[in-house]
Order: sequence, then structure tokens, then C-alpha cells
Amino acid sequence: MATATDVRAEIETANEGFMTAFNQGDAAAMAGLYTTDGQLLPPHSDFLTGPDAIKAFWQGVFDMGVKEVKLATVETEAHGDAATEVGKFTMFLEGGQVADAGKYIVAWKNEQSTWKLHRDIWNSSQPATG
Amino acid sequence: MATATDVRAEIETANEGFMTAFNQGDAAAMAGLYTTDGQLLPPHSDFLTGPDAIKAFWQGVFDMGVKEVKLATVETEAHGDAATEVGKFTMFLEGGQVADAGKYIVAWKNEQSTWKLHRDIWNSSQPATG
Repeated sequence: MATATDVRAEIETANEGFMTAFNQGDAAAMAGLYTTDGQLLPPHSDFLTGPDAIKAFWQGVFDMGVKEVKLATVETEAHGDAATEVGKFTMFLEGGQVADAGKYIVAWKNEQSTWKLHRDIWNSSQPATG
Repeated sequence: MATATDVRAEIETANEGFMTAFNQGDAAAMAGLYTTDGQLLPPHSDFLTGPDAIKAFWQGVFDMGVKEVKLATVETEAHGDAATEVGKFTMFLEGGQVADAGKYIVAWKNEQSTWKLHRDIWNSSQPATG
């Protein structure tokens, strides 16, 4: 049985994989980090469900010129094969300009010893525009 | 031991209390629905922690003229005294005009047989402005 400390470390390792795939602009690899019925809950969008929709979403982010993401886990809470993570993100354009910075909650599922994102919601902490 | 069905029903009942407090514009009652170290993760804001910050946030929403909220639970997953809920919300101005509509994830904690909001993040599903 994994301890709480183990799970946090495992999720931080999974986030390293998320950052690597993101920073390579590899939307297919991003989609593979989610459960097969995984869902994104992006700002200004309805729920996006499943690998094709998730891949298309992240491809759209890359197509807008977002080049890099940094994730920082704030806390995790694990119950067996499920875990909830609260974290902060920063996304960068070419040259290191901040595209957005905010916070997220991810519901993770452990599938065959791999933590996968199952539900992924975030929002910006920057002032509203418009 | 509560079943998954029980927990969903209990959380939907807790959401009825949330809607009642909201629709009465009672920010103090809203704050009392959260754990004592509860956190809001609102769009365009940093983390807001604790009853005073939570009360002030919801008071600010009421002061902007938001009169009513409707919550609809999409799914819940419970592990003992912890549960995660995915849902949809709609907020209304006076006269029923939609102020915002979107989705949320709440991490709930059961404290002395009462489900309390512990982490509360949401975002708009409406198109971005500006």
C-alpha cells in the first residue's frame, strides 16, 4: 500500500511526464496521460471527453503558440487507486512570456500502477480582461 | 458505511443548502458550508482560504447583483469521509438573466456527519470576452 508521501511523489513524477509532453508540443502523448474516459473542464468550453477531444484541445493550445507549462503540486490526497491534486500552473509563450498562470484540481486514477489524469479543471488567476 | 448512492444524495442535499444560502444572499451562511480551512479557487483570483475570505468572496458576488445559483451534480466519487463532485452551475442576475454558466469540481469532507466543501474550483463555459 502506497503511503500519502509516495502518492504525492508519484503524481509529481506523472506531472513531469505531463510537462515533458507539453513542452514537446506532443498532443497525442498528452492525451495518453488521461484515462480513456478522461475529461477536461477547460475555461470557456464545455466538458471535453476522451482521447480525441483531449488531443485536439491541447493541439489547439500549441497552435496558439503556447510552448511550455510548469506545474507545481500544492497538495494531494489519495484513497487507494484515486487521488485528488490541487496545484498551480504557468504557461509560457516563445521567449518565456507568461501566457497564463492559475490553479487546478485534477482527479487522478491509478491504472495498472500508472497515475492517469481522470478529471482536469483549471482557471486563470490573472485579472479578467474585457 | 454509506454507499456511493447515499453519498451522492447527501451531497445533493448539501448543495440544496448551498443554493438556499446563496439565493438568500447570506454570505455568512455560505462560509459555514466550508471546512474551517476550506479554500475557494475562483477564476481571476488567487486561492482564498478560510471562512472570512470565503464570506467576503461570496458577499462580493452578491454585491455584483448575482441573485441565484443552480447546481447540478454530474458525478460523485466517495472514499470514506472524502468525496469528489463534478457538477455544473448557472448563476442568475435579477429577473433571471444568466450571469454565468460553467462547471466545477468540489472536494468534500464529511465532518461529524455533515458534508462540507473543502476545495472549490470552477470556471465559465461561456465564450471568453475581451
